[in-house]
Amino acid sequence: MKVEVIAIGDELLIGQTINTNAAWMGARLADLGASVEYCTVIRDERQSMLNAFELALKRVDVVLVTGGLGPTKDDITKKVICEFFDTRLVHDEATLKNVEALFASFGRPVLDVNVQQAMVPEIATILHNAHGTAPGIYIERDGKVLVSMPGVPYEMKYLMQEHVIPRIGEKFELKSLYYKTIQTQGLGETVIAQRIEDIEDEIRAQGIGFAYLPSPGAVRLRLSSEVNDEKQKLVDSYVGSIKERLPAYVFGDGHTSLQEVVGKILLEQGKTMSTVESCTGGAISQSIVSVPGSSSYFEGSVISYSNRIKSELVNVRQETLDQFGAVSKEVVEEMAVNGRTILATDFCVSVSGIAGPDGGSEEKPVGTVWIGVASEGRVLSKKFRFGNNRERNIRRSVLSALNLLRCELLEINIEKS
Amino acid sequence: MKVEVIAIGDELLIGQTINTNAAWMGARLADLGASVEYCTVIRDERQSMLNAFELALKRVDVVLVTGGLGPTKDDITKKVICEFFDTRLVHDEATLKNVEALFASFGRPVLDVNVQQAMVPEIATILHNAHGTAPGIYIERDGKVLVSMPGVPYEMKYLMQEHVIPRIGEKFELKSLYYKTIQTQGLGETVIAQRIEDIEDEIRAQGIGFAYLPSPGAVRLRLSSEVNDEKQKLVDSYVGSIKERLPAYVFGDGHTSLQEVVGKILLEQGKTMSTVESCTGGAISQSIVSVPGSSSYFEGSVISYSNRIKSELVNVRQETLDQFGAVSKEVVEEMAVNGRTILATDFCVSVSGIAGPDGGSEEKPVGTVWIGVASEGRVLSKKFRFGNNRERNIRRSVLSALNLLRCELLEINIEKS
Repeated sequence: MKVEVIAIGDELLIGQTINTNAAWMGARLADLGASVEYCTVIRDERQSMLNAFELALKRVDVVLVTGGLGPTKDDITKKVICEFFDTRLVHDEATLKNVEALFASFGRPVLDVNVQQAMVPEIATILHNAHGTAPGIYIERDGKVLVSMPGVPYEMKYLMQEHVIPRIGEKFELKSLYYKTIQTQGLGETVIAQRIEDIEDEIRAQGIGFAYLPSPGAVRLRLSSEVNDEKQKLVDSYVGSIKERLPAYVFGDGHTSLQEVVGKILLEQGKTMSTVESCTGGAISQSIVSVPGSSSYFEGSVISYSNRIKSELVNVRQETLDQFGAVSKEVVEEMAVNGRTILATDFCVSVSGIAGPDGGSEEKPVGTVWIGVASEGRVLSKKFRFGNNRERNIRRSVLSALNLLRCELLEINIEKS
Repeated sequence: MKVEVIAIGDELLIGQTINTNAAWMGARLADLGASVEYCTVIRDERQSMLNAFELALKRVDVVLVTGGLGPTKDDITKKVICEFFDTRLVHDEATLKNVEALFASFGRPVLDVNVQQAMVPEIATILHNAHGTAPGIYIERDGKVLVSMPGVPYEMKYLMQEHVIPRIGEKFELKSLYYKTIQTQGLGETVIAQRIEDIEDEIRAQGIGFAYLPSPGAVRLRLSSEVNDEKQKLVDSYVGSIKERLPAYVFGDGHTSLQEVVGKILLEQGKTMSTVESCTGGAISQSIVSVPGSSSYFEGSVISYSNRIKSELVNVRQETLDQFGAVSKEVVEEMAVNGRTILATDFCVSVSGIAGPDGGSEEKPVGTVWIGVASEGRVLSKKFRFGNNRERNIRRSVLSALNLLRCELLEINIEKS
């Protein structure tokens, strides 16, 4: 089954909105074994839409359209779909009831523009949207399928999971692709390629797909094969070999994030954690809290952005700050050790660095970051040298801090691997 | 000048990577007055690439290709470009020197795979990449342009700003579009539409483009016209009318973020701030710190995720916690007032809420969030009722907290507007 995702909206083309929907849909469809061949973004404009629908229905089996179903005056998708399929808009009572129920639950009156949502293409199957007023529109023609959904991510996700994936999974016989993803943190793409060159050569010789998926501070490796007992065993065994080769850097499989991995280990070990952050400004803490249930192991943090807060709240000694500077092994270790006491947790992660764009020096250039982890009777610290981009430096500091904590929790010696 | 952006990479189609490049390129090209008509994502596969290049060079003037130039074995873009333009790869000494200099600056040895970067299509103009080893490739044919750049965002951005935008701006006479964006926080799309209905009708009657660009917790409004004195004056005056109609909700223009707006006001007023956060886990603090130079007004935070930290570090009285619960007006006000004292700042923002998915009750359902702002001799608090999605609830809490702080700083009464 081949799929094209068409996202409609000037706001996507002029960059006011990032197309996160496409990534989410792609990941879910890949899991199903569907092949997403194209993702096309077009303007909120009649002729572009007609052309895109026609091209897509020629080259793929399923066309998933997002966007352009909102209640405001600039959304025209529904009308163009009627023109393309030579049908008309009719009133749908179930959709109206849904709109009324949603507004009642928010305690807000139903406006005229919202009532318009109940007008739907006559030939379509209407997909109930529990999270919004615009329903999904499902149309089959000549053995192919076109689905139109709202562009609001959580509404699209609901419609995909509840209606679209079950329907297209049933209609098309989905031959699954077998794949495994290995997630790594702390090594660049080329260093990994060099360290596993022999394994990679073997993988390719076996006809197994292999790809590097780099993102700032992390690289994922993807192995893929057909569904076939022998091939699947091979994939699994190569995954094992790579993990063994890079123990301190491979942190997990699949879609699991580093903060989820760390959270799971803390839960299993019954340990608690806290952070004391300077240049990351709460980004580590926030990534921990983004995981539901983190209150079981996360107590809190002190964001000691200024030196005054470092000394007044975290008791970093003034002489340490004066002698070594805020971005130093000595300060980051005092932050971790004192933070662990003040916040009364088993582990405390600390960060102090120069995120940039200013504040660097010859000795400590922008991108210099010290990270510490304190545990009972022990403190480890490590210096990192990132780049010049503030956002990337913060992101890489968070990932490096979480991985350092992971290594400490699992007693992996990161210096030796 | 019509543009198509082609992003190459299985990782984009299967959702391992979000296509943030397209949004960035779209925004910069729109500012130039270029019209981005299509954005297409295709597989890392020879025939798809050849087809996409051909279709794009038929329907637009400039084709911007990203991705597939990395040093690892799965990247084939450069070879396919040679096939498409009937040319061959040749050695480029300047690129090799750049690769060597970059590796020297990181103190790392140049590997064989990196040397491959110096092989470039013979007919191309080579664009120097100061931030990475893969150069940009610029090819003109029949009055049209195709540019290939790495998919790594900061390398692509460098190449676009330094080389691509100046070149295509010169080659094509760019007729600018005039547009203004108004950024709002705190009201939904339909409520805004209702509150400015008369203004919107007038705008459309004048032939001025008008669009709603919603994202979680914020809605941007975009007005656009041709470049024309009379029309531009009209656009500006309608922008003014909308701001006047929604004083507590319109926070800025253009691409400026709410944290930048708040930072600018704090700098102008010479005031400092801090946060005490529970359910947002440092997300407010982190958004403040994401702005370069925030150390001038931001001191630090306490992330009091557990009740123990609320009472031990922030001195919230145990009786207040027991009587009203952590998510209450009383607790959030103590957090703000005490946080202001402990962190010694002019303003302190506090948040306590139920982000979900669990932890809700009949009386305080998931999505209930209290936000407080303490200033000298004053504390304001406001209850919000968001939805069921943890990530969205955190995002909306951050934006609502920043906007509440903005209103306090500017003495705007949010209750009355």
